[in-house]
Order: sequence, then structure tokens, then C-alpha cells
Amino acid sequence: MMYPNSLEKLIACFRTLPGVGEKTAERYALLIVEEDELEVMEFVKALQEVKEKLVHCPICGNLSEDGECEICRDTSRDKKTILVVQSVKDVVAMERTKEYHGLYHVLNGLISSSKGIMPEDLNISSLVERAKNAQEVILATNATVDGETTALYLSKLLAKECPNVTVTRIAHGLSSGVMIDYADELTLIHALTDRRKV
Amino acid sequence: MMYPNSLEKLIACFRTLPGVGEKTAERYALLIVEEDELEVMEFVKALQEVKEKLVHCPICGNLSEDGECEICRDTSRDKKTILVVQSVKDVVAMERTKEYHGLYHVLNGLISSSKGIMPEDLNISSLVERAKNAQEVILATNATVDGETTALYLSKLLAKECPNVTVTRIAHGLSSGVMIDYADELTLIHALTDRRKV
Repeated sequence: MMYPNSLEKLIACFRTLPGVGEKTAERYALLIVEEDELEVMEFVKALQEVKEKLVHCPICGNLSEDGECEICRDTSRDKKTILVVQSVKDVVAMERTKEYHGLYHVLNGLISSSKGIMPEDLNISSLVERAKNAQEVILATNATVDGETTALYLSKLLAKECPNVTVTRIAHGLSSGVMIDYADELTLIHALTDRRKV
Repeated sequence: MMYPNSLEKLIACFRTLPGVGEKTAERYALLIVEEDELEVMEFVKALQEVKEKLVHCPICGNLSEDGECEICRDTSRDKKTILVVQSVKDVVAMERTKEYHGLYHVLNGLISSSKGIMPEDLNISSLVERAKNAQEVILATNATVDGETTALYLSKLLAKECPNVTVTRIAHGLSSGVMIDYADELTLIHALTDRRKV
């Protein structure tokens, strides 16, 4: 005997989530069994609504419930600056800083030779179009191999297609709270090379 | 800007799962956004079916889709032996061994002073009734403080209420694959005390 059929099905569904193995999926499913009927119905509603309502913003690729996203529709934002990120999560992370007031462009992935993701799989062609009317494009992809590859590709592409736009890359260096003797060499090289006058 | 409303709601739902923090809930929810509509509908159906169909077996407390559970209904099983476990997960773990052919009794928790769980919160009274007709009750609660407390409580209760039944506790000792120099002291003490002739 394994679990009853309906429970096995729910465990299989939880297993499709990223990083969820058999044991974790079991724990999740058994919690659902013990949870209040109402709370589970909330869960069901939330899943349905996400699929019904959410779309990608046709301008920047961010998530939205209604065509253009909140940020693209916000008239108070600086329309001349575009910050390029890998995913919607990064938009939220940047917005939390409250330091940036321009627009975004969500690539929905990074160029990756190991995963076989090519530039044409990403939301890049519309970036080129948007960049033509911008003053600055800030490349804010991760400080990883794929992130750097994508930033390099975009900087070359934009230099060729939109020669009038300034393309910048977010700064690399010591993360806040990191001790120098624990930082890796690449980080220290960046921190030294990009030092600035105080 | 945070995420769109419907996405925030789904993140909140995922956060109710055990051990799921903000970041993990975000990852789960964003996967759902990108997932195939059909797969998400499978998920919705699985959640609904679990709530509609699953009940606790009135005899042993195991999960079942239809009154008495598969194990209690199985006429080929040894009805004179009852193995007492904390949760449905433990029933499945024991069944996987294919070594045990008796019945189960699921307590749905353990006595815990730290969590304020008392004997009357658990599925114990029906165990006493069942034990009166059994030959052996095997206490298979975890080898933790709460597990041992519960086993001790049950052994005393059963000795008093059902003096004719044999109450046993599963063996404690070295887990399979564990090296002696890595084993904790309590495990080694158990392994020594309960040694047997070869």
C-alpha cells in the first residue's frame, strides 16, 4: 500500500515544483489533508486566478493583470532609462530598494550555452526597439557566467543597433556585510578595479 | 510595486506550507505562472479531490478514500498485531519494508510538553479498545524525546487497561550504514544494551 490515490496525485503535483523531492512533497500534501477546507479552497482559487489573470506586459515583459504593467503605465517614471533584468523576481527586488525610478525590461531568462538558451529564445528584439528611444540602458543581469554572457551580448548588440544610447552595467564589488577575507578573488578584483575616490 | 495581486495571494498560500519561506514561495508561484494551463488545472483538481475524498479510517486513523482503510479491510492481514505510529507517513514507511503484515494504529501526533500536546489530543482511546482484542501492540513512535515519552505513556496505559496484551517497542540501535565513530552516545548505549547473540 502506498498513499490513497488522490493523495498520490497531489504529491505528484507538488513534486513538479522546483527543488521539491518526494519527502517534501509528502509533507506538503499531508499538510493539505489536515488543513482547513476553506484554506485549501483559497489555495485552489489563487492557482486558478493566477492562470486566468496574469499576462506578460507587452512592453517590458513584466507580469501584469491587465495588459501593460503598473510600471509601464506609471506616468511619473523616467521613460528614458531602461533597466534590463533576467526575471520578474529581479524587478521586485529592484523596486524594494526604492532607488530606481525608470522602466524595466524583463528578458525572461539568460543566454546559456549549458542550458541551450540562445538570444532568440529571450525577450531581446523588443528591447532593441525600446532602446532606440532611450537615453540609458542599465544591464542588471546576475553576476554569474550566464549573467555576464548575456550582458556582454546585449552591450555589443545595443552598441551596434542603437549607437546613441548609453549602455551601463550595474556595479560589481563587495556585497554589503561581506568580510574581505571571505570574499572570492573575482569579487576582490572587481572591488579593486572599480574603486572610486572618496 | 510588489507582485500583481493574484500572484501575491498565491505566494501567501504557498507560504502556509511547512518550511516554505518568502523566497521559496516566490519560486513556486512564479513556476506556476510559467507552467502549462493544463498542469495547473491538474494541481487544482488534485487539491480539490484530496479535500473531497480523503477521510481518516474510523478504526486505525490511517487515511482512506472510502471509510475503512485498505489495510483494515485486508482480510489476509494478521488482526492480532497492532503497530502504533505517529502519522500516516510512518504507515507508508513501514509498508515499504514489506516485513510487517499486521494492523496499524495512527496516533496523529505525539505527546509533547513543549508543543502542549496531551494524550487526550491524540487517537489513543480507540487504541485501548482495540488492544483488548489483540495479542501484541508494537510501539513504533520516533526515537525522539516526544516519541519516547509517548511510548512510555502508552506502555503504562496498556499494561493497566489491557493486562493480557504483549506490548513491545521497536528496536533501538545503530541505523543501517552508520559508522560507529559517527553515532551519538545514546545510540551506542542502546546498541550495547540491546545486543543479541549471533
